[in-house]
Amino acid sequence: MTLSIDAMGGDSAPDVVLEGLKLFCARRSGVDFLLHGREDELAPFLSREPALAKRTTLRHADAVVKSSDKPSQALRRARGTSMWNAIESVKAGEATAAVSAGNTGALMAISMLVLRKMDGVHRPAMTAIWPTVTGRAIVLDVGANLEADAQQLLTFAIMGEAYSRAVTGSEKPKIGLLNIGTEEMKGHDEIRQAADLIRNSGLDFDYIGYVEGNDIAGGVADVVVTDGFTGNVALKTAEGTARLLGSYLREALTSGTMAKAGALIASNGLKSLKARMDPSRVNGGVLLGLNGLVVKSHGGTDAEGFATALALAADLGESHYQEEVAANLARIAKAPKDTESETAA
Amino acid sequence: MTLSIDAMGGDSAPDVVLEGLKLFCARRSGVDFLLHGREDELAPFLSREPALAKRTTLRHADAVVKSSDKPSQALRRARGTSMWNAIESVKAGEATAAVSAGNTGALMAISMLVLRKMDGVHRPAMTAIWPTVTGRAIVLDVGANLEADAQQLLTFAIMGEAYSRAVTGSEKPKIGLLNIGTEEMKGHDEIRQAADLIRNSGLDFDYIGYVEGNDIAGGVADVVVTDGFTGNVALKTAEGTARLLGSYLREALTSGTMAKAGALIASNGLKSLKARMDPSRVNGGVLLGLNGLVVKSHGGTDAEGFATALALAADLGESHYQEEVAANLARIAKAPKDTESETAA
Repeated sequence: MTLSIDAMGGDSAPDVVLEGLKLFCARRSGVDFLLHGREDELAPFLSREPALAKRTTLRHADAVVKSSDKPSQALRRARGTSMWNAIESVKAGEATAAVSAGNTGALMAISMLVLRKMDGVHRPAMTAIWPTVTGRAIVLDVGANLEADAQQLLTFAIMGEAYSRAVTGSEKPKIGLLNIGTEEMKGHDEIRQAADLIRNSGLDFDYIGYVEGNDIAGGVADVVVTDGFTGNVALKTAEGTARLLGSYLREALTSGTMAKAGALIASNGLKSLKARMDPSRVNGGVLLGLNGLVVKSHGGTDAEGFATALALAADLGESHYQEEVAANLARIAKAPKDTESETAA
Repeated sequence: MTLSIDAMGGDSAPDVVLEGLKLFCARRSGVDFLLHGREDELAPFLSREPALAKRTTLRHADAVVKSSDKPSQALRRARGTSMWNAIESVKAGEATAAVSAGNTGALMAISMLVLRKMDGVHRPAMTAIWPTVTGRAIVLDVGANLEADAQQLLTFAIMGEAYSRAVTGSEKPKIGLLNIGTEEMKGHDEIRQAADLIRNSGLDFDYIGYVEGNDIAGGVADVVVTDGFTGNVALKTAEGTARLLGSYLREALTSGTMAKAGALIASNGLKSLKARMDPSRVNGGVLLGLNGLVVKSHGGTDAEGFATALALAADLGESHYQEEVAANLARIAKAPKDTESETAA
């Protein structure tokens, strides 16, 4: 398998990209790399890393998508950028998946333009991998769209289910719809209709019903389906909460001589805690619903995080994600429209 | 000032209510209590607590709103319940604020029926007090409604601003609108229209613009305005994240002999951390926008948490919250409708 990499995307590109690539290369065999970016900035690193260089093909691209570019601006001058070329390699069949830490909006826009949506997908969805008390959950959409109607939420469920199997290995992922639980006011119309659609889809899904915000980290579902606005607010809120509690913890363990001494003695345990709270462990959002795989690494990630994103791309590339989603989308497209009229009634 | 208390609401009523009341009574003078509930369950406690009994008037109510009742069911048989009577006391002018740990939906429905909405308020809003790196922020609506249009978001801003001054003491609270930040897709129409309305309201507000989920705990704004669906998901997601990180911390500090020893030595610092992560410290949601004050305590709270809810009710009762909101609502009602046509244009 070959991964196509935008070497110039991200806050500390290309250094973090190259260091992350080196980490990943040492950990995983059987994967080659197409590296897109400025030759003069990339070649010196490769010449110092023969093991990596042997598995890497360097493709010079002079232009770079800026992190400040709006998607529409980026699109106008996208051709020939390292980001465009990385995605183009997937379309051309030279690579199985593309990975970039660059501008999210531009990456989504270019991906949609170059790879096009899968048949049966109205809107692609951005995923997040969410740590939970029992392991990891997939949440989608976390920001590719503002809104989602019932039919779109159903396709998110289909994509999230196959994605969960591909990257977390759960055999039959539990699917939940994100909702609120204040008694009779059970959610928007779209959510109630989506519940009907998923239940009556004829797909062999383990649909567990509505879940609330606290259920995400609670590990109640393997896949949490929501619209992009709500998913993005939830994801950012969780990040903010984790940062707040991290600052509380630091203060508590530096609040006096005894606290500092205790922290020193418990340092191994605290190191494992730090590792678990480390966002790079779960780095990598995937834009699902396109004719090709595109993994978005966090722009501010470190080398470890970029390596995680590469591993995610390789896991997805080795899985049957794309075929499974296509099969399920075809199944609901062929299904009699009874469910829709039921819902409308 | 007199507080009116539903003694029978909550998972461990009336015990937790009575113990919380006793805590609050010892900490704060100048507040009397109207205690609504079953005399035979309440009188024995009061007879053992003479200091509390001296400041308490017991009002027998036989019926109780069940936690499993849907709001519509609860409303049908609400009259004569301890919850209804607690709110009725506020309407009758016998008490400044009502406090209940009972069924949220029923409390909202009964409060709206008994107290009615303030002039200029289309929908009341439920608030949450949110710990931040710089102190506390107010988030509203966290679940009284599913949706909110621009005009409703403006009234939430007005209510949240006065509430923030009343309970956190910030002189001129910074107001932010919760949104997502994926480049050009800046939020729903309602949010963009609400931004225009707040900016052009003529009110002397410190409106700081859009904030994202991570900005809530980041302390960027003192008041975060959002619709009830999004606010509820954000609140529950933060709770779930805090619980997950708490379980990580426990595991890290019990993962071996050294970790345990370190935790023991640092125990004072960790105790202060535990106190800061304790949800009872920020217990108490207020249903804003009614002709009277109603504080909702978490149903599963402990005595400390119920005492916090009582303190919140007392703080609000001593403030000029109600007058300030009424004045600002009157101001926007009188304002020329230019802003509306601007927004529509």
